[in-house]
Amino acid sequence: MQHFSAFTRIRLPSLIIKRSLSTRPIEVTQRSFANASNRTRTLAKSHGRIVVLGSGWAGFKLMRDLNKEHYDVTVISPRNYFVFTPLLASTAVGTLEFRCITEPVRGYSKDVDYHQALCNSVDLENQLIHCTSNLDDNKGEKFTVDYDKLVIAVGEYSNTFNTPGVKEYGIFLKDIKDAQRIRARVLECFEFAAQPGVTDEEKANKLHFAVVGGGPTGVEFSAELYDFITEDLSRLYPQLMEYTRMTVYDVSPSILGSFDQKLSNYATQKFERNGIQIKPGSHVLEVKKDVISIKEEGEVPYGMLVWSTGLMPNPIVESMMTAAKDPRTRRILTDKKLRVLDSKTMEPLKNIYALGDCATIKDYNLPATAQVASQKAIYLGNELNAALKSNSHVDKGFSFENRGSMAYIGSWQAVVDMRPVHEKATEGGHMAWMFWRSAYLSMSVSARNKMLIPMYWCLTWVFGRDISRF
Amino acid sequence: MQHFSAFTRIRLPSLIIKRSLSTRPIEVTQRSFANASNRTRTLAKSHGRIVVLGSGWAGFKLMRDLNKEHYDVTVISPRNYFVFTPLLASTAVGTLEFRCITEPVRGYSKDVDYHQALCNSVDLENQLIHCTSNLDDNKGEKFTVDYDKLVIAVGEYSNTFNTPGVKEYGIFLKDIKDAQRIRARVLECFEFAAQPGVTDEEKANKLHFAVVGGGPTGVEFSAELYDFITEDLSRLYPQLMEYTRMTVYDVSPSILGSFDQKLSNYATQKFERNGIQIKPGSHVLEVKKDVISIKEEGEVPYGMLVWSTGLMPNPIVESMMTAAKDPRTRRILTDKKLRVLDSKTMEPLKNIYALGDCATIKDYNLPATAQVASQKAIYLGNELNAALKSNSHVDKGFSFENRGSMAYIGSWQAVVDMRPVHEKATEGGHMAWMFWRSAYLSMSVSARNKMLIPMYWCLTWVFGRDISRF
Repeated sequence: MQHFSAFTRIRLPSLIIKRSLSTRPIEVTQRSFANASNRTRTLAKSHGRIVVLGSGWAGFKLMRDLNKEHYDVTVISPRNYFVFTPLLASTAVGTLEFRCITEPVRGYSKDVDYHQALCNSVDLENQLIHCTSNLDDNKGEKFTVDYDKLVIAVGEYSNTFNTPGVKEYGIFLKDIKDAQRIRARVLECFEFAAQPGVTDEEKANKLHFAVVGGGPTGVEFSAELYDFITEDLSRLYPQLMEYTRMTVYDVSPSILGSFDQKLSNYATQKFERNGIQIKPGSHVLEVKKDVISIKEEGEVPYGMLVWSTGLMPNPIVESMMTAAKDPRTRRILTDKKLRVLDSKTMEPLKNIYALGDCATIKDYNLPATAQVASQKAIYLGNELNAALKSNSHVDKGFSFENRGSMAYIGSWQAVVDMRPVHEKATEGGHMAWMFWRSAYLSMSVSARNKMLIPMYWCLTWVFGRDISRF
Repeated sequence: MQHFSAFTRIRLPSLIIKRSLSTRPIEVTQRSFANASNRTRTLAKSHGRIVVLGSGWAGFKLMRDLNKEHYDVTVISPRNYFVFTPLLASTAVGTLEFRCITEPVRGYSKDVDYHQALCNSVDLENQLIHCTSNLDDNKGEKFTVDYDKLVIAVGEYSNTFNTPGVKEYGIFLKDIKDAQRIRARVLECFEFAAQPGVTDEEKANKLHFAVVGGGPTGVEFSAELYDFITEDLSRLYPQLMEYTRMTVYDVSPSILGSFDQKLSNYATQKFERNGIQIKPGSHVLEVKKDVISIKEEGEVPYGMLVWSTGLMPNPIVESMMTAAKDPRTRRILTDKKLRVLDSKTMEPLKNIYALGDCATIKDYNLPATAQVASQKAIYLGNELNAALKSNSHVDKGFSFENRGSMAYIGSWQAVVDMRPVHEKATEGGHMAWMFWRSAYLSMSVSARNKMLIPMYWCLTWVFGRDISRF
């Protein structure tokens, strides 16, 4: 240990202190960090401002791809980060940490301007959008942003089909906040059941985990919860295992209905073997506090209810009267160049594009998936960047290349349906699970997360999931 | 890719699937995870039940050390985890992730019983404690737990010195939830200032970060926030740096007053060089929304206020009339064997111990630090375990071995005051910082966190801190 008076002689190599500020003495009266950065941004670029509404699969990907030397790019979104949704269910039980699957919008490029706000309306004539801040301190504060090109990628909301009580008592699985709520809730249910004086009936009610919706999200969440219960909670609350149940409700006759029939059966058998009940053909009438009312079986108590039954339009999309909508899904209709169509003339509107879950191409209906959103963003980014060049680029319009679908089904098994790529390419089991993990790892965005994700997979395998509840 | 029909032939080595359940077919009608664990717990052990109130430095350490083959150990605490407090300030700005510094109480040993509750009162005569659940679903539910030996390690609350508005508008730095609030708040302030239409004055007000209290916690938090601002936020919000300010207020004449004078001066100079204002001799009269009222300078606007001025007794300690209290600090008085003293006779009460911040030894006053709490827990654990053996163990009473103190002061520098170990062992600068990091890493508890902490240090160094706000 060096004596104090020697401290001025000790200096680490410059590599180590590269991120710290200059340490030369400056005026004590200095009151700000003005010197901490000397970067400036030029706001007026030659090809004008592209405003992107949304920071999901479509908006975030497009923002990254756009040529920011020539375009001013502004992102407006109520959340300042992108979520890698395929792994959201993993974070809801702690297989992965929340920040393994988020990417900050601002972090990507200092050339992107960002405002945390909701878009209220679009003024097509003056090329303006009206926004409302959703920051706690500034809530309801309104401002306008002008655009040269506008890209609508606001996504959709979770659909409750007007079932009473879902918003109040159910938990969706769309955002990090939902995953945080689920993680806290599962642990709360177990701590509740472990308290003195709780009856067996109360234990069984509180430890009934209900999932409504047997699509990929509902199935993957059930699988992750199953892993959490059997791998970790069974070790920590052994006396509660006999009270613990999981049920997946769906209106349709089977789970994973969009997958190959064999895979759907495989997942069903796997769930049943694991003790997860599947209740196909169930109609949820109402969700109350602690009780779900089902047409086919009456009132069923639950401790946590996760609702994942599909999507419904975002209010901003509903309010855009000028834009044509798909009559069934009420999504914005675009042409194959992703230009929004006029609701009267069905001709493309000027300088306004829509993609992601909130949009669909006229006469070319595609599912509302991350894969479609991402491919549309790549297409639009290429086209907008190509428009900067003088040579005659031919825009052939968007075409989707279906790469298949995957779902995790628990205990290190998955189902992979790649029939669009090869007619026999379907797979269920451990190999499919390895493929599932590799595919998602390769799709994750930043180098940071590409390191964090496998590291947490290892940590979870070795040490189990953390159950600290805060 | 294997064809689906081949899935039954594919099996990973047993190592890989060691954590999954048996996959042999079981009845489809099975409704619970009863088979997921076959462990049972024997609740009656030969030497009776030790109830530990609290899961901080004292309670958590004692729980780990107690011989659980002979003692039934029950922990009762409002939070189900231990927090490694020296690194809490690091998590508040994202240098480390929250779960790097928590250890679940249940995770440590399946032989420890745990209840998430607050203790209301102790019935010494019948050896019972009355508790109130603090789970959301069970809030206010009361239950009693009997004990053979009771250990009070409930800690203390943050002291506001009855300053109005601190609880409403200030943020303490005692628990993970505080760190989460701080992290979200700093990012909110920057997003606010970056929104269109915000005036320069509003920016300057919102980007004034005030810290009240110049002790180690206040100083370390200021240092971490300084790093966050200069290393990350300056890159992401370069245009806002000229509005950003930090101020540390303290009633006493200097910061780090408990440290060697030279180190205190060193930290002061470092802060001033960095542009962090120090306002010694400041008396905070009131905290309002967005404004702090200071006797010496009137009303000062702020964006975030962190309050860290010391500790005050926990209500349960206040209500224990039978226990003797220190007249000045109102902490529980114990003898050197950590047995609680009777307030009337000043003789030790039977089977009841107190340690950690809520207790102090009569005529042997020690600071309320993690170091003291931890050493007392080791001492008491040894004594209680030794009492199990028949040989005549001599209990010489607790004696504290002061190992000095450390504080991080920003930009990879720290101050280390080890005068209790060697009279000349004081150090400030980069070497001290390396010592600071090594010491805390070696003190962190689980293998999991010993891996996570250095990994996040590296990730933060390479990629910066994540600014996703949720």
